[in-house]
Amino acid sequence: MTGTWATFGADLHLDLAARAGAPGLRAALAEALREAARSGRLAPGTRLPSSRSLAADLGIARNTVAEAYAELVAEGRLTARQGSGTRVAARARPRRPQPGAAAAGAARAGVREPRARRGPAYSLVPGSPDLSGFPRAAWLAAARRALAVAPDAAFGYAVDARGRVELREALAGYLGRARGVYAHPDRIVLCSGFAHGLTLMGRVLRERRVREVAVEGYALDVHRDLLAGAGLRTRPLWLDGAGARTTDLAGLGPRVGAVLLTPAHQFPTGVALTPERRSAAVDWARTEGAVILEDDYDGEFRYDRQPVGALQGLDPDRVVYLGTAAKSLAPALRMGWMVLPPDLVAPVVAAKGPVDWTAGALDQLILAEFITSGAYDRHVRGMRLRYRRRRDELVAALAGRVPVSGIAAGLHAVLDLAPDTERELVRSAAAWQDLALEGLARYRHPDSPMPARDALVVGYGTPSPSAWTPTLTALASALP
Amino acid sequence: MTGTWATFGADLHLDLAARAGAPGLRAALAEALREAARSGRLAPGTRLPSSRSLAADLGIARNTVAEAYAELVAEGRLTARQGSGTRVAARARPRRPQPGAAAAGAARAGVREPRARRGPAYSLVPGSPDLSGFPRAAWLAAARRALAVAPDAAFGYAVDARGRVELREALAGYLGRARGVYAHPDRIVLCSGFAHGLTLMGRVLRERRVREVAVEGYALDVHRDLLAGAGLRTRPLWLDGAGARTTDLAGLGPRVGAVLLTPAHQFPTGVALTPERRSAAVDWARTEGAVILEDDYDGEFRYDRQPVGALQGLDPDRVVYLGTAAKSLAPALRMGWMVLPPDLVAPVVAAKGPVDWTAGALDQLILAEFITSGAYDRHVRGMRLRYRRRRDELVAALAGRVPVSGIAAGLHAVLDLAPDTERELVRSAAAWQDLALEGLARYRHPDSPMPARDALVVGYGTPSPSAWTPTLTALASALP
Repeated sequence: MTGTWATFGADLHLDLAARAGAPGLRAALAEALREAARSGRLAPGTRLPSSRSLAADLGIARNTVAEAYAELVAEGRLTARQGSGTRVAARARPRRPQPGAAAAGAARAGVREPRARRGPAYSLVPGSPDLSGFPRAAWLAAARRALAVAPDAAFGYAVDARGRVELREALAGYLGRARGVYAHPDRIVLCSGFAHGLTLMGRVLRERRVREVAVEGYALDVHRDLLAGAGLRTRPLWLDGAGARTTDLAGLGPRVGAVLLTPAHQFPTGVALTPERRSAAVDWARTEGAVILEDDYDGEFRYDRQPVGALQGLDPDRVVYLGTAAKSLAPALRMGWMVLPPDLVAPVVAAKGPVDWTAGALDQLILAEFITSGAYDRHVRGMRLRYRRRRDELVAALAGRVPVSGIAAGLHAVLDLAPDTERELVRSAAAWQDLALEGLARYRHPDSPMPARDALVVGYGTPSPSAWTPTLTALASALP
Repeated sequence: MTGTWATFGADLHLDLAARAGAPGLRAALAEALREAARSGRLAPGTRLPSSRSLAADLGIARNTVAEAYAELVAEGRLTARQGSGTRVAARARPRRPQPGAAAAGAARAGVREPRARRGPAYSLVPGSPDLSGFPRAAWLAAARRALAVAPDAAFGYAVDARGRVELREALAGYLGRARGVYAHPDRIVLCSGFAHGLTLMGRVLRERRVREVAVEGYALDVHRDLLAGAGLRTRPLWLDGAGARTTDLAGLGPRVGAVLLTPAHQFPTGVALTPERRSAAVDWARTEGAVILEDDYDGEFRYDRQPVGALQGLDPDRVVYLGTAAKSLAPALRMGWMVLPPDLVAPVVAAKGPVDWTAGALDQLILAEFITSGAYDRHVRGMRLRYRRRRDELVAALAGRVPVSGIAAGLHAVLDLAPDTERELVRSAAAWQDLALEGLARYRHPDSPMPARDALVVGYGTPSPSAWTPTLTALASALP
């Protein structure tokens, strides 16, 4: 018996023995293979052993195996191609979910869709980068370099719960120069994306007897749900053109021990938190001994004005900076990072629990090489150009029809609508333009103090390049 | 401003402005770079922009930048190499943890070491494969093929909480032929290794009002801890040369709703569960409506006798099969799989929670290609030869000195010792032979019914090829 075909071979033996004296070994073997393919024991695409090797395993003549293979090839159950060997033929597969609206839908912030839905053909639902932009060749080149130099120990169980030191060092350098984050490798903890980081912080805050967390009046519902799941009540802050009114934090009372903010590019309204409000948040955190959670989800993509650095630089001992590769590279990498005040490193590591589900070490090593080689900068630069062009086309296409805001950065814009028209517009766009849109309403905190605002949150990063122009046309047709 | 150097550039501007009139732009720029490297804002290895590009960003002459770079190269703070650009020079790094005993130590079963310890030079602590055996070139080749054909949607948020269909199909085929598992892709759920799978099952069992889980009298303490963490009491089964005495299950009472077994190769004693005891377990599960958790951690590595298939094949509707790539490929992949009875698929998916931390989709696609192309079979075959040779050398080296058992499969053997000598032998091996060993005692369930047994659990898979011979010599010297 060679290889993992051993059990399979043993069963075949039995089969063959049971049929001894029957129409011969060749037919018995062919039928055993047929049955294995039918039942799924041999999956489509599986490469079969060479006829020589299987014959040796089964103790029968090579020719018998070759003839049985040929029989199944003739029946279309196996395929035989030069160089690719004999494989089980592909069957009709269950239909894969579409890459369109459903996937992008509830996907924001690292939360997966419970099951695939068939959505409209076009989608401007925010939360996804243009997935066709993933730098396959550059990533593979980084993988080659990273695998060439990785120490053997890198393939073993992790020895540092914070994650590979190579990636923490690369991120420290990158976040320092690109986002103004004070990020020593020792205070970086890798996680599986923003949602994982927020879950860990929720546990840590709860252990510290924090009962309530202030959030922005419009924000991701899934983030509120994660905090609620950790036993924390969320309290909405007034949100206007200067960002969240952090000057109100002191008035929320002593039960509020943290605030969750998107300072560089508020999600979903797209405004930047002003310097005054940044200072107010930090002052409050210092006075109250509270923590600021900074969600820097698309900080790389800023187009017009001076770059807006991270809030964390103002007080690295009060701000937990959370970043992710989901928007800049791919959500599928499940890769995020936290830059922590020194006293929070040990509690966050403890919150990970005895089992760490952070992304595999190979991807950590590859991303480290991707960053230090400069490939990450090049990729972000290229994607920024792509998104900026789309943004400009979006603004031009809608010129004078609806007010467009939140467009200095990121992958989404806000289109203001006449009062009480949002829900109907989203509905009719899906029905008549085959276009998935999302309104502002679903992001509104139930206790939000501001008057409701009818608007669309348009994720112009979502379409693939080929879908972009028809998607934009569909949007223009859908608007009043 | 180009690229992610924007914020860094803005700071430099301020710096340069503040120093205007001073010794000149070149010195100011050089000092700013020096400071950035010192403070860690520019990490070692970071590639700087070309002098042309940085000069354009800063609005100064290219020559000024080139001269500042040259100054820092001369100081050893930057390196400039043809084709690799100008980079921040490497500094002395904090010492990396050794790949030796510490990493292998508490590592078994996907549980990471809380912090690196400096262990003895040689290690036979069980739980780790030979990490030097990771098939770097073949893995990279599979990555190239997988990335070439992956649909764009694969880079987005997951649409199926069970994991990528490509990998579930590949595993269904592989597990069917190699392990005799009945494994339709629909009933496979990917997880981050055995410990993650056990955690999910712990949650599901608890929700179903299960209070107690039977375990083997000797077993991994970390698995008992995970079950205890889910609120489940563990009840030890008598363990002998035929495996766990599953005939005792019925006598444990109705609070026991599941049993955790290692049927193919008991960990740590190394015996295989006999057919009679397999049947007894399945009969009990059917009668009581209970669940069998099958930990098939090293099923690929069997050397002598007929292959021992998975217990799951006996009753796929009563057995939860748990497998992992940790022993066959690398623990660092964080990749495991569960083959579930149909009625448990939805509860396990729900137990994953709103955030799924399963390994990144790229690794899932690569492993799928690795399996279907036949590379996995080839790799397992090669490693099996390597481990088998070691096992034979181990047995030969100890011939007649101590009884060696549990050697028909896997990556570890059990060496029986005289009563009350285990602890002292482990201590003296570390002290005198610089050799990390592990005794059987730590695996004993506190309520275990059997008399204690003094023995060593020798993980001969752990050493690298170059360390193997001196490690074996150290072991031979350490034994009485």
